[in-house]
Amino acid sequence: MKRLKGSHPITIISVCFTIFFIAASLSAAGPDDDLMNRAKAVFGPLPASMPSPDNPMTPEKVKLGHILYGEPRISVDGTVSCVKCHPIGLYAVDGLKKAVGNNCKPNPRNSPCIFNAASQISEHWIGNRTSVEDQAKQALIGPPSYGMPSYEAVEKALKGIKGYEALFKEAFPGDRDPVTVDNFAKAVGAFERTLMTPAPFDDFVKGNAKALTAAQKRGLQAFIDTGCMTCHFSPYLGGQLYQKFGVFEPYEKYTKSQAVDEGRFAVTKNPSDRFLFKVPVLRNVAATPPYFHDGSVEKLEDAVLIMAKIQLGKDLTRDQTSDLVAFLQSLTGVIPEAALKVPVLPQAN
Amino acid sequence: MKRLKGSHPITIISVCFTIFFIAASLSAAGPDDDLMNRAKAVFGPLPASMPSPDNPMTPEKVKLGHILYGEPRISVDGTVSCVKCHPIGLYAVDGLKKAVGNNCKPNPRNSPCIFNAASQISEHWIGNRTSVEDQAKQALIGPPSYGMPSYEAVEKALKGIKGYEALFKEAFPGDRDPVTVDNFAKAVGAFERTLMTPAPFDDFVKGNAKALTAAQKRGLQAFIDTGCMTCHFSPYLGGQLYQKFGVFEPYEKYTKSQAVDEGRFAVTKNPSDRFLFKVPVLRNVAATPPYFHDGSVEKLEDAVLIMAKIQLGKDLTRDQTSDLVAFLQSLTGVIPEAALKVPVLPQAN
Repeated sequence: MKRLKGSHPITIISVCFTIFFIAASLSAAGPDDDLMNRAKAVFGPLPASMPSPDNPMTPEKVKLGHILYGEPRISVDGTVSCVKCHPIGLYAVDGLKKAVGNNCKPNPRNSPCIFNAASQISEHWIGNRTSVEDQAKQALIGPPSYGMPSYEAVEKALKGIKGYEALFKEAFPGDRDPVTVDNFAKAVGAFERTLMTPAPFDDFVKGNAKALTAAQKRGLQAFIDTGCMTCHFSPYLGGQLYQKFGVFEPYEKYTKSQAVDEGRFAVTKNPSDRFLFKVPVLRNVAATPPYFHDGSVEKLEDAVLIMAKIQLGKDLTRDQTSDLVAFLQSLTGVIPEAALKVPVLPQAN
Repeated sequence: MKRLKGSHPITIISVCFTIFFIAASLSAAGPDDDLMNRAKAVFGPLPASMPSPDNPMTPEKVKLGHILYGEPRISVDGTVSCVKCHPIGLYAVDGLKKAVGNNCKPNPRNSPCIFNAASQISEHWIGNRTSVEDQAKQALIGPPSYGMPSYEAVEKALKGIKGYEALFKEAFPGDRDPVTVDNFAKAVGAFERTLMTPAPFDDFVKGNAKALTAAQKRGLQAFIDTGCMTCHFSPYLGGQLYQKFGVFEPYEKYTKSQAVDEGRFAVTKNPSDRFLFKVPVLRNVAATPPYFHDGSVEKLEDAVLIMAKIQLGKDLTRDQTSDLVAFLQSLTGVIPEAALKVPVLPQAN
């Protein structure tokens, strides 16, 4: 082999290695790699947590938040805590069409899954909560949720339970009077910001071609090609924008909804927000029926067919539908070990 | 030393050691040992579990029972599971005066703690359930609890949740059609039979004099001397017999109960059972307010004073009361690690 003029032998070896690796990677690049690369570009990897600059997640705050998440004694009838609508073992949903609050008061919409939820532009189906902290705080006085008459009443109830003072002090060491609803909200929010559920889909995005079945890969391809990912993008496959529900046809025609909900219009009163809802996060969708803002659809197959029809104007084939369902099942993740521990609540006396 | 005629030296050494140990134990026997011995005789040590010959506790059955314990999708409104009235983190009570069932239906009495509960002669305040299995089964069709129209409807709901079939098969390998309400009851019962909560009191009974504070020891002495242990005996400090509530005076005079409940009379229609209630297990009593069959009393101090007054005709001093409360706090036990894990429920589809 003739040495290239002026080249050091090590440089030549480096060039050879580089060429070898490029060739090797090109020869390995099959449909799986194309799909992986597209998935990485459209969705990206799931982060380890969902931090907020406004609410640092200290272990003490997360611990307190986990306890408060299951605390019913600060609700007006003693039965409501975050757990009521978001039980961890049921993938943080209640399985009902619409949530039920204190004294069996009906809630306007279906309980969203709180796993991976802090990642969204806003909370609730119509975005009327700015963050998980805002959601947690407002729920306390929400008439169909905790139903407390005032934040002061919540603080009195919290102070009435021996044991909370020390826990709040540990979580908020700089505060003189730490037992407040704002700190309740921060603690619950910090806990919720830890609730990530990595799934087989993430292993695939990270490069393990065997993490998805053939049907799931076809479903992922269909999810991209059909246009689902136009709205359901980001590592959360949703939660990043509002969209009209029923672009091609009114949703109630297919969902058989009992009543027509005008969505985000209720928040903004802006006519262009009629029928807009936040695009829901699709992680754990297979584990969290029933579907849509009113829980009007039981089966994931039906939800997929309806979405293609009324959002994209497409009639899916049976095979496309079952592939898409298979793909959506690959988004069912692992619930964090720490969240699967029942915290023992402080004693009242 | 003159050798005793015919005695082997080893025998003599043994005799000396025996005398030494008797002397040593006599010299050590102080008030703590007397109290320990009395406590051992009256109460005895807490067993490791509460087995039943009718329902062997296999790990598979306990695992299924733990899952079913938190399963709301088999109740008439999708909101009721064992967890609703007996959340593990709140010491297996709901903290309400009276339990609340499906569609907010009121229950007639206060939720009893299900820890250590399988040890009792019967379940419920008036003994209208023969065992934890019987309680679990009947709750499914109890109008103010799960409220299902029939056992068949429960079985249909269970079979409608993918994942239960395999779990029931594992737990009941001999059954051809294992998804039944009887097996639901056996599984939940087997789980509940594991729920023991050993407490500082048990360490004391086992011989650790430092396990109780001085006030707790005085309280234990008072518990025995005042006569509380006449009804609250066994390792469970209760659950072994029925007793009239209000021996010396009508209970409602002191509890300020809203309505008069005639107790076990409702079950037997026997006039001598008027105002009889099952003597409740006192383990974890400090952690499980409010008190009595109707939750009419909030504070443990008040409950202790009322019990002495109307059951034993005695007016306790302030010191006796606070000692008794201190003793009762030594019955707050450790919740089993396995029960403090949230089981992930099987998916519906």
